[in-house]
Amino acid sequence: MVKRVAVILSGCGVYDGTEIHEASAILVHLSRAGAKVQMFALNADQMHVVNHCEGKPTEGNRNILQESARIARGDVTDLAKLEVSEFDAVIMPGGFGVAKNLSNWVVKNKDFTIEPQVEKLITAFHKAGKPLGMCCIAPILAAKVFPGCELTVGSDNACERWPYAQTVGVLKEMGCKHVNTDVDVAHVDVKNKLVSNCAFMCNAPIHEVFDGIGVMVKETLKLA
Amino acid sequence: MVKRVAVILSGCGVYDGTEIHEASAILVHLSRAGAKVQMFALNADQMHVVNHCEGKPTEGNRNILQESARIARGDVTDLAKLEVSEFDAVIMPGGFGVAKNLSNWVVKNKDFTIEPQVEKLITAFHKAGKPLGMCCIAPILAAKVFPGCELTVGSDNACERWPYAQTVGVLKEMGCKHVNTDVDVAHVDVKNKLVSNCAFMCNAPIHEVFDGIGVMVKETLKLA
Repeated sequence: MVKRVAVILSGCGVYDGTEIHEASAILVHLSRAGAKVQMFALNADQMHVVNHCEGKPTEGNRNILQESARIARGDVTDLAKLEVSEFDAVIMPGGFGVAKNLSNWVVKNKDFTIEPQVEKLITAFHKAGKPLGMCCIAPILAAKVFPGCELTVGSDNACERWPYAQTVGVLKEMGCKHVNTDVDVAHVDVKNKLVSNCAFMCNAPIHEVFDGIGVMVKETLKLA
Repeated sequence: MVKRVAVILSGCGVYDGTEIHEASAILVHLSRAGAKVQMFALNADQMHVVNHCEGKPTEGNRNILQESARIARGDVTDLAKLEVSEFDAVIMPGGFGVAKNLSNWVVKNKDFTIEPQVEKLITAFHKAGKPLGMCCIAPILAAKVFPGCELTVGSDNACERWPYAQTVGVLKEMGCKHVNTDVDVAHVDVKNKLVSNCAFMCNAPIHEVFDGIGVMVKETLKLA
């Protein structure tokens, strides 16, 4: 049976949208596994636009769906049209788009809320017993929807390798069971059918991030 | 010896910049091979901005360097600062950015010219006996600089699998020896130290494009 997977994008670029290489790795691994993929994104403006040379906000508005279409080579659908019954699993790459466009994490931290369409989607897949695969910062969304869930965003050991280690503390404050893992591991919360991998939360060479995402994709498809 | 490779980007998105998945695949394969990579891009405006949902030009200006920084996660250098002596090879992914921002191919076809900095760079690597790896539409640049060179942009058999097959005719008119190849093959022009692979000129599954680019990267590093 071909597994049908919805991939949720949040723009195009690590600082204001989807982390490009995480999305690309997800698509390569899903393709190799023979999955049928459809990409989705919110049809709404990004929180802001970041000049990726300087890492600072700049002028202008960009639409999340249109920017996601850069990753999707044009083939991306408005998230409002996603029918959960048509898919066996959902996968979400990271990038600050998760924390800026799919939620207000960057503003509110542990008191953040998820964009209603996105929250509804995660809840619906969960209720239908369908797995969620998430990498990088994306598991914060699961932390909100499934209180007490098990997940990983890497390690709580703040150092050059783990520049975003403080995220772990916030997830623990929210009541999650955070599991320290390296970049080559995906943690599976069997009860919640939630698969997480740290990806670029780890300052690792890109081929290691690519391979770790492969493990996340594989574990997600196993649960589908 | 660690191979030092310059990767030349032309924006971020297949229709007005670098093809994202080709760039990502190049970086993954170079990382796995232990190469030291530095990314470069022109500090200039794109020819135009394309709404990737509609495939049509839209309003606004975007800077090639800043958009390339989305792929480079901020770590991209102005092409004007590239020192050929500091690298063993150069690799160029495709995407319409090659035909719009690095050259005027989309406007002039076989009578196109290459942006002077880019032409100078290709010539300098060639003169220094250093290999060029190119995929997708990028080999058109080599066709201009090395008259009579051997290269591939896929197949001249126009069909659903080869939507850009007409490119082959133009390259032949320019005097190139075009070699029909499938997506998993890289053609090596030993004399010109030019390695080419069709990548997304072929309508193939993304993991096949990823693997074909891996062959191109491997052959380029062999010549370096």
